[in-house]
Amino acid sequence: MTRGYFVTVEGTEGVGKTTNLDFIQRHLEAQGVRVVRTREPGGTPLAEDIRALLLAPREEPVASLTELLLMFAARAQHLQQVILPALNAGQWVLCDRFTDATYAYQGGGRGMDIAQIAALEQLAQGDLRPDLTLLLDLPVETGLARARARSTPDRFEAEKIHFFDAVRTHYLARAAREPERFAVIDAEPVLADVQAQILTALTRLDVTTDV
Amino acid sequence: MTRGYFVTVEGTEGVGKTTNLDFIQRHLEAQGVRVVRTREPGGTPLAEDIRALLLAPREEPVASLTELLLMFAARAQHLQQVILPALNAGQWVLCDRFTDATYAYQGGGRGMDIAQIAALEQLAQGDLRPDLTLLLDLPVETGLARARARSTPDRFEAEKIHFFDAVRTHYLARAAREPERFAVIDAEPVLADVQAQILTALTRLDVTTDV
Repeated sequence: MTRGYFVTVEGTEGVGKTTNLDFIQRHLEAQGVRVVRTREPGGTPLAEDIRALLLAPREEPVASLTELLLMFAARAQHLQQVILPALNAGQWVLCDRFTDATYAYQGGGRGMDIAQIAALEQLAQGDLRPDLTLLLDLPVETGLARARARSTPDRFEAEKIHFFDAVRTHYLARAAREPERFAVIDAEPVLADVQAQILTALTRLDVTTDV
Repeated sequence: MTRGYFVTVEGTEGVGKTTNLDFIQRHLEAQGVRVVRTREPGGTPLAEDIRALLLAPREEPVASLTELLLMFAARAQHLQQVILPALNAGQWVLCDRFTDATYAYQGGGRGMDIAQIAALEQLAQGDLRPDLTLLLDLPVETGLARARARSTPDRFEAEKIHFFDAVRTHYLARAAREPERFAVIDAEPVLADVQAQILTALTRLDVTTDV
């Protein structure tokens, strides 16, 4: 049996990940591809419990390395229970964020040690990398304004823009270093234009291998 | 300020860790040593939450690497929040189990990949190792019989003996490779004899550095 493809969607807040994940899933399923849609951190009951530990507000300062180890504990579980079995069964895995987000948010945004992230990536994933990573890219102000429009508004802090700028820059730098794996999607135009770019990127993968 | 000593107590079930940790703490405090007594996995609120995740029964099979990453996430937090600040403030840290237990239980007992444990130890601890590790050693049958006497009895399974034998063997092999750090304490004789051995082992550390 042919191994399925592993497709990840990345980007900062408000770039339209959910809308476009829905679009990609519908498009692939319409072509007869069996798709497992999942997300990180999370994707299994234990990994969701770890996600809850990561997100819970607490007085105790959380050490950077603790946070990274928890992220990769959730990822190791997700890989073992969901991602690898699906790929090995010939299904495609469509994942909302993966290790590129750890590099961009924890490494680029929060300044955690990139070498530690790389060591944990190697330990948890071996040689496994996504076959295609769609990076939805948007100026940070535009994305935050869109995100604000759909949820509780909060103050537009300079710090927030600075942080997401660092995340965006790190994502773009990773995409530039691995152009075969990444497709950078300009998420600024109208949805039909964004989705045309996504369809073009998906032609890199052969949907007929699975059907 | 002189850095405090890091002392760990290891051993399989029923070897008398708690009784002897109490004894060591009282002995050191009587000599004016400031002691932080702690345990693994755990030792901080977040690390205890991670411990609870590790111990909770669940239907989902937990991947070996997930378990190791969770153990070391708790350990990284414990080091950052408790162990390193205490040592740096000149206090001694007296810890009920540490990384040797991961090697013995997860590596020796359950056959997890020793190279993965070593990679995570390096990541979480760098060069930090205990200054002294007291390994309380006892034939497995004797320890399990003692443990049964103080808690709910359960069936004396052949599997359990085989598992703890592997743990004990791994502990002893580690002690043999690092005789400067380990003191193997024969935990079979009467308590006074055991404690005499512990006092001898503690003379390796200079209590006057702290007072």
